[in-house]
Amino acid sequence: MERKELLYTGKAKKMYATNQETVLLAEYLNQVTSLNGAKKENVEGKGELNNQITGLIFNYLAEKGVASHYIQEVSKTEQLIREVEMIPLEVVVRNVSAGSFAKRFSMEEGINLPFPIIEFYYKNDKLDDPFINDSHVKMLNVAKDEEVMEIKKQALEINAALVEMFRKIAIRLIDFKIEFGKTADGKIILADEISPDTCRLWDVNTKEHLDKDLYRRDLGDIIPVYVEVLQRLKNM
Amino acid sequence: MERKELLYTGKAKKMYATNQETVLLAEYLNQVTSLNGAKKENVEGKGELNNQITGLIFNYLAEKGVASHYIQEVSKTEQLIREVEMIPLEVVVRNVSAGSFAKRFSMEEGINLPFPIIEFYYKNDKLDDPFINDSHVKMLNVAKDEEVMEIKKQALEINAALVEMFRKIAIRLIDFKIEFGKTADGKIILADEISPDTCRLWDVNTKEHLDKDLYRRDLGDIIPVYVEVLQRLKNM
Ligand SMILES: Nc1ncnc2c1ncn2[C@@H]1O[C@H](COP(=O)(O)OP(=O)(O)OP(=O)(O)O)[C@@H](O)[C@H]1O
Ligand SMILES: Nc1ncnc2c1ncn2[C@@H]1O[C@H](COP(=O)(O)OP(=O)(O)OP(=O)(O)O)[C@@H](O)[C@H]1O
Ligand SMILES: [Mg+2]
Ligand SMILES: [Mg+2]
Repeated sequence: MERKELLYTGKAKKMYATNQETVLLAEYLNQVTSLNGAKKENVEGKGELNNQITGLIFNYLAEKGVASHYIQEVSKTEQLIREVEMIPLEVVVRNVSAGSFAKRFSMEEGINLPFPIIEFYYKNDKLDDPFINDSHVKMLNVAKDEEVMEIKKQALEINAALVEMFRKIAIRLIDFKIEFGKTADGKIILADEISPDTCRLWDVNTKEHLDKDLYRRDLGDIIPVYVEVLQRLKNM
Repeated sequence: MERKELLYTGKAKKMYATNQETVLLAEYLNQVTSLNGAKKENVEGKGELNNQITGLIFNYLAEKGVASHYIQEVSKTEQLIREVEMIPLEVVVRNVSAGSFAKRFSMEEGINLPFPIIEFYYKNDKLDDPFINDSHVKMLNVAKDEEVMEIKKQALEINAALVEMFRKIAIRLIDFKIEFGKTADGKIILADEISPDTCRLWDVNTKEHLDKDLYRRDLGDIIPVYVEVLQRLKNM
């Protein structure tokens, strides 16, 4: 598979065409951002860590029966993916209170929730990715009612698989953000990435943050903990 | 019916017991507030206007088959209502973009929406009435899934009736907030008030605001427009 022209530069990845229609090459970048890009930095090594972590997680999910856009790794920082029509939603699944959720309900962080909570954010940089409800999803023509149901169903299945996977490597999956896309034949599948950039991961024993919150909250370097997550996944 | 002890002082009403169990007396106050009470003022005459407007609207809804807590007016500022267990939700129905909705989607105010949009806010002063989704409603034990469905169904029926009613008196119903309560036998009914304090009402011809936005946005006195709304309802 050959890398062809650059199609799009996002905040965390560059998307290239390949010599095969319907296949893209995603190059994972070293750029770390927060506050919708208002805060950003280059962190040497992040791209290859997230490329590998995402690959391992998508392979694990495939074994558990969860389809995704992931095809295969082609270099330390690059992976081949199936091109899909992205659904502009950030689908957040929460198992434990943290972040904006803890703030909204004036709750301490770290409280187990009675069941996984799903939230939709409209992926729109100009609007600052606002929190929306199902009525808004429909109005924005982001997804049809049946598609919303399918997205929620898949999100819960993915959550169940990931909670179990991370538990095996002594990590508590607090919450995460995923994105879905539609294939040419209208099937909704998991796309984008799953990495410490997009999950809150707490070490079960030390309670240490093994994720981007270290950067968001200026708590320390992300590279050592991303390396730790990758190592544990490899040894799983 | 006799007015007995004061049970609760809200921002807009005082609730009294009566000599009949399950019946309360609501006294409508002159206090106007915005920003969850951070901004407030006494406006002579507001209480009696909203008491009468709410009575006329709840009577109109009853004719259209919508049950509510409303029993009858007992004085200019007082009405008898059926006591219910309040569901701590502010249920907002929107026909036209305005307010926080227009801001969330960076939309001009006054755009007709393709269908009525329902939003839930968790009625909790300490949390500043946060916008929440159905997953949060369930987590907060605010309402069961079937109750949420019933609330949405009734909200749309109430909206349809109100849009038609206001159209008859040359008013465009932009959006409004309602609250529901549960009777002893578990039935969900419309409660609280429906008034220019809780609706956005624009004159169809002049486009003038006939509602509390005059106060929120320091655009002018509310009394003359509340009087106008009451007069039009009376002459309907
Ligand atoms: N399989 C796929 N097919 C097409 N696009 C995809 C696929 N997977 C992810 N994308 C999109 O690729 C883009 C680049 O990803 P990246 O994470 O860098 O972007 P972002 O910063 O989150 O968002 P933005 O596009 O607003 O910059 C995103 O818009 C993402 O939704
Ligand atoms: N039928 C009813 N039975 C019991 N309570 C009711 C009924 N209708 C309305 N209420 C409640 O009466 C209270 C007083 O109304 P008011 O509008 O003044 O309060 P508020 O300022 O909106 O809210 P808060 O109670 O937080 O001050 C509200 O909590 C409202 O939900
Ligand atoms: Mg991204
Ligand atoms: Mg009130």
